[in-house]
Order: sequence, then C-alpha cells, then structure tokens
Amino acid sequence: MDFELLGTEGAARLGRLTLPRGAIDTPAFMPVGTYGTVKAMTPVELEQLGAQIVLANTFHLMLRPGAAIVALHRGALHGFMGWQRPILTDSGGFQVYSLARLRRIDEDGVSFRSPVDGAPIRLRPEDAMDVQRALGADIAMAFDECTGYPASHEQARESMQRSMRWALRGYDHYYRDGGGSESSPPGQLFGIVQGGMYSDLRFESLQRLQERDFAGYAIGGLAVGESEPQRVQVLDALATRLPADRPRYLMGIGYPHDIVTAVLRGVDLFDCVVPMRHARNGHLFTSQGILNIRNAAYQSDPEPLDPECDCSTCQRYSRAYLRHLDRCNEILGLRLATLHNLHFYLQLMRAIRAAIAEQRLRELAERVMAWPRRTGAPVA
Amino acid sequence: MDFELLGTEGAARLGRLTLPRGAIDTPAFMPVGTYGTVKAMTPVELEQLGAQIVLANTFHLMLRPGAAIVALHRGALHGFMGWQRPILTDSGGFQVYSLARLRRIDEDGVSFRSPVDGAPIRLRPEDAMDVQRALGADIAMAFDECTGYPASHEQARESMQRSMRWALRGYDHYYRDGGGSESSPPGQLFGIVQGGMYSDLRFESLQRLQERDFAGYAIGGLAVGESEPQRVQVLDALATRLPADRPRYLMGIGYPHDIVTAVLRGVDLFDCVVPMRHARNGHLFTSQGILNIRNAAYQSDPEPLDPECDCSTCQRYSRAYLRHLDRCNEILGLRLATLHNLHFYLQLMRAIRAAIAEQRLRELAERVMAWPRRTGAPVA
Repeated sequence: MDFELLGTEGAARLGRLTLPRGAIDTPAFMPVGTYGTVKAMTPVELEQLGAQIVLANTFHLMLRPGAAIVALHRGALHGFMGWQRPILTDSGGFQVYSLARLRRIDEDGVSFRSPVDGAPIRLRPEDAMDVQRALGADIAMAFDECTGYPASHEQARESMQRSMRWALRGYDHYYRDGGGSESSPPGQLFGIVQGGMYSDLRFESLQRLQERDFAGYAIGGLAVGESEPQRVQVLDALATRLPADRPRYLMGIGYPHDIVTAVLRGVDLFDCVVPMRHARNGHLFTSQGILNIRNAAYQSDPEPLDPECDCSTCQRYSRAYLRHLDRCNEILGLRLATLHNLHFYLQLMRAIRAAIAEQRLRELAERVMAWPRRTGAPVA
Repeated sequence: MDFELLGTEGAARLGRLTLPRGAIDTPAFMPVGTYGTVKAMTPVELEQLGAQIVLANTFHLMLRPGAAIVALHRGALHGFMGWQRPILTDSGGFQVYSLARLRRIDEDGVSFRSPVDGAPIRLRPEDAMDVQRALGADIAMAFDECTGYPASHEQARESMQRSMRWALRGYDHYYRDGGGSESSPPGQLFGIVQGGMYSDLRFESLQRLQERDFAGYAIGGLAVGESEPQRVQVLDALATRLPADRPRYLMGIGYPHDIVTAVLRGVDLFDCVVPMRHARNGHLFTSQGILNIRNAAYQSDPEPLDPECDCSTCQRYSRAYLRHLDRCNEILGLRLATLHNLHFYLQLMRAIRAAIAEQRLRELAERVMAWPRRTGAPVA
C-alpha cells in the first residue's frame, strides 16, 4: 500500500491511497455495503458514480452467509459481490458493542449470541483477523471494544487499554505470514484510536498502536452519543499527533458538515450509512438542503429533484415521479433515491479534493456549514 | 400504425408493428409496468434487455398519481417514467372486474370505490379512453367488462354484448378528433374479444368489433380460472377468424408453454406479471426449469444461476450470492432476479421469432413444452 500526500491546506490533506486493486483519491467517502451489497445499487453503478472503495461489515457477513461461503468465490468478497475495486471491512467490534446485553466481554475476546439464529459465537481479535482475511479485505480493521458514552475516565482507560492489547494481538496475527492468496492480494491492517472523550487517553491509545506498523489509523468510539463540540475536540487533539504519512479514517460519520469539519482536521477517509438510509426514508440531499420527497408539495411537481445535480435521477425523472414511486413502495424509487444521495456524497468529496488542490477549502467549508441540515428545509 | 407480416409457419406469424415511437418485432412480450415502473428495473435496463414496448395499468395510474399529474410531464407517461419506446395501456376493465363486490355495473359504466382511499369513482368507456389519451398511450385498449368464470351461455352473452357496446362507444370517442398532442403522437385503439368459453359468442364479439376499424384485436376474458384445454379451444376457434392484417394480443398470459401454445395459434403480443412476480418470490427461470433460489442447496453454490444464460446476473453473480441477497431481503436481489427472468422471457421471444423465420417453430415448441413447469424442479 502506498499513501501519497499531494497537497495540503492548513491541516486538510489531498492524497492518493494506492492498493493492488485500485487507487483511492482522498478525502474519500466509502459507500457502506453491509451484507456485500450497497443497498439497491450494483457495482457497475457504484463505479459510474465514482466510488473507489466500499465498506463491508464483517459482523454481518460472518453471520450471513458466513466467511467460508464468501471464500468459495474467486476473489472472495470481491467475486461474491462482483466489485473489483478495493474493499475495507470493519472488524465487527462496533456491532458487538451494539449488542449490549447479549454479549459478554473478557480479556481474551467476546462471546455473544447470533442475532440471526441465536447460535453462540466466540470472537477473539485473532478470529476477527481471520474472517477479514477470508473475506479478502484490501483494508482490514483492528478488533476493538467500542467505549460507551458517557464513560468515566477510568472506564474509558480500561476499555481503551484492552482495545490496544487486542489491536496488537490482531496485528501480530494478521501479518504473521504475509497474507494474501492466489486470488486475493494481501490486505493492510488499520489500527483504531480509542479513549472516549479524553485527549490524554486518545494520545495513550495512539502511542500504543505505534508499537506496531499499522498501515493507517482510524478514529473510533465517536458517533456514540457525544455532542458535536466533544467530537471536534477529539479530532482537534489528534490532528497534529496522527502520523502524517498514514491515511486517517473517521469511522461511521456523517453528514456533509461533519465530513468537512473532519477534513479541515486532516481526516482522509469516511464512511456512513446516512446517504443510503436517508434515501430509503425519502430524504434526498440537494444543493438547497435535504428535501423530503414525501411532502405533498411535490405531488404535482414536474421539476427535477435538484436542477443543479447531474446524476441520472435528476437528469431523467421529476419530483412528482419520485414521490409517486415512494408512495407506491416501488423499488425503483429506492434505487433512484439511493443513487442520487450517493452521487451527492461522492460529488461533495470531489469538490473537497478540488478545493484543497486550489487552496479554497475554507471557502467551500463555509458553504457546506451554511447548507440547511434539517430535513424538510424549504427548497427553491 | 403499420403491421407487416414477415413470415408464417402454420398459423404462427412473424411480424413487425411500427408505431411513431418505435417498432416492435412480433411475437413480442411486453413487461408489465403497473405504476409506471417495471418493478425494480430502469428504462435503460429494459432497453438493454431488448424490450420494445411495455404495458402500464390505467386503473392503477388513474388512482396514483392520477392521469392529470402524469400529463404534466412532457410526453405524458413516457416522460413521467422515462421510457421513450411504445407503451400499451390496458383500460382498467380487468381491474374493475377484480374489485368484485366493491363495484356496481350499469349500462353506462362502472361505479366503484378507490381501493387506495375509498373515494367514489365513476368510469364510463369514454372516461377510460380519455385517461389513456391523457397518459399518452401508443396503444390503448377498449374498456370492457371481463366475463367471470364459470359463466352460463346467457351470462357470457349479456356480458359480451355490453362489452361490445362499450367498445364501440369507446372507439367513437377515442378517434373523435384524430388524437395526439404536441408531445404525444396519436395512439391506436385495440378491441377486445370477449365471450367466455363459448366459440359462438367469441365469433359474435369479433363480428361486433369489426363494425369499426380497430387497429388490433385482443383476446380477453382468459386466465380467469378456466382449464388449459378450454383456453386452447378459444384460441383455436379465433385463430382463423381474426383479421390477418391486424396484430393479435393475448392479455395477461402466461408461462413459456402458454406463450408458445398461443404463438402456434397466431398470437403476436403478450404480457404477464409472471416473470416479475416469480422473481420477487425467488423463482428463477432457467434453461433447466424454474429454480427456487431459497432452496438450501444453493447456499454454498458458487456457480452462476444458469450457465447457459448470458444475462448480466448470470455473467456476474453466483447462486450463493443470489440466495444470500434473498435471505437478507436485499433490494439488489430483487433487481438481479427480475432482470434475469425478464431476460429469459425476452430471449424466449427472440428464439420464437428466429424459429418462425427458419420454419422450425414446431421443434422449438416441443422443447418449450418439455421444459419443467413446476417450481423447484431439479436442475443439473
């Protein structure tokens, strides 16, 4: 893996991450393909939208269909889902954390019951690495315990320290034999910085991770209920400490303003279910704000969703048609809405990269910050 | 409208129907786009599959979003749904018939309550023509009463005679001013032969319709519960009587063997929800029979759905992936299954046309008749 810094504006970075399966221009947004499919989209459509990498969820794929079935396919997950560009898999740590009372954590790993069929499952950091290797991930993530919110300093420290022990165990296991197979090039492992809302713990976490040579660094344990200022404080604290020569990934975040906020603090990679989930709820991202297509005002509106958008949904269909499809629960409605929202996000990333290249990110950031965040904002 | 007969084999006909918006090679299958969308598909995909015409349901579009909203779009339904090739609309007669106790029929028309919001609706033959004109249909259908099954000779005769009075009223209304508008070329109206299972009534029906100059003739009132031999008998009776210079359309039918059976008796046009509906239930048409993708045998099967099929689903994805998508209720699963089944039907029609051109339809028909009809048939 090669990560090249092509330019900066303040702390913001323009970069290029090169993997055997393809290059990723950063800052980049990774569409989420939980079960080995970005909901409602084909890989060809994702390529046409300009997606250079997708994220898949190890936890979900481990339960259905199981890594062994994926691994039967040439190229593993790439062959299974028909996507030949890079794939990042999360480790399952966040999903295990979300199981709450259904899981039991000890020093060696996590025990939980499958939410699909109730079967008992044991997951140690080494297992999480094996699954990601079997899936053929180009970028794998360390298996960690996501620290809850709120957490006392002591709770956050204990949780972080366990996560760091797990990260190092995972690293040693992941890289034990060089990795890769005939149909899958070896992947790269990212560490995840934890430590809750406490800067000193975030620094300690980063220091522990640096005992190994992780290919990149993720910022985890955010979007768990903290306020926006708290999140920005964590990003600010880490901005100058994260090694400059490695990609930085803010996990599971967020809205356009969240992404710009993090780019301004040096983050390179993003993923979030927001564009896909909002699309399924009829909430469509436009240049004028989030438009709720279920609003009766659009029933007889023959105009395109966003006259400024050049996605195929806006080029071909009217608001009245999109509202009609939504009202009739037509699958095509979900397709067109998802395609549009993903285009919005990927276009935002292209605009961010162009702005950094031309030293006008602050200008763009101001416009994004002023963009109406609330659903149902009036549009022109 | 121009209908050219390019060849025959026995009663079977190879033809070409030319409309202002495009030509249709016959025998042809029309994918059903009830609400102005062939479920899960885009118009571009339908074109790539080779669909030359789609069917839309007047009854459904009248209720949602309403013809006036469709008509706000340039090209009416064509613009609304983004499909520029011909569209055939049914008249709503069959759907009104399906409402059973919720409708009241008198000589002038039908009264019923909207199944969407309970609003009272009055539909006369003239109204059904106006709605189809507003939708911009390239081929519109006469508004008729679908005769129930079983029906006595007297019931069938009374019902047929009313339908014929309605058909002639509709014809006179439809063609009263030449039709068409700035963005929609004038459409053509097909008559529908009724008469239940009684050949004498079918002949009388056809004779009544020939009091006007309908552009084509549909065979209605089938697929209402009759046996296959009864249906074939109706087709046999009409085969030599329908005017040879007009396209013939068998409404709402059927499975591959039904289509071949009717082609052998001179039918040119077909529509059916079977390929789309089966796709949504995981029933996939293959060269070896109907495969139920929910069958556990496919869980770890990395082979394509049908190795003999060249559709993009079979080119790119495995049975294991399709089963996984179905099991996880992923929208992509419905897309890939629908695309495959539609490809199967459109490919069948191409094979039928090639066979007639080469005088080997009987050979093809034998193979289609031997094709396993039952779901879950074992595949190689």
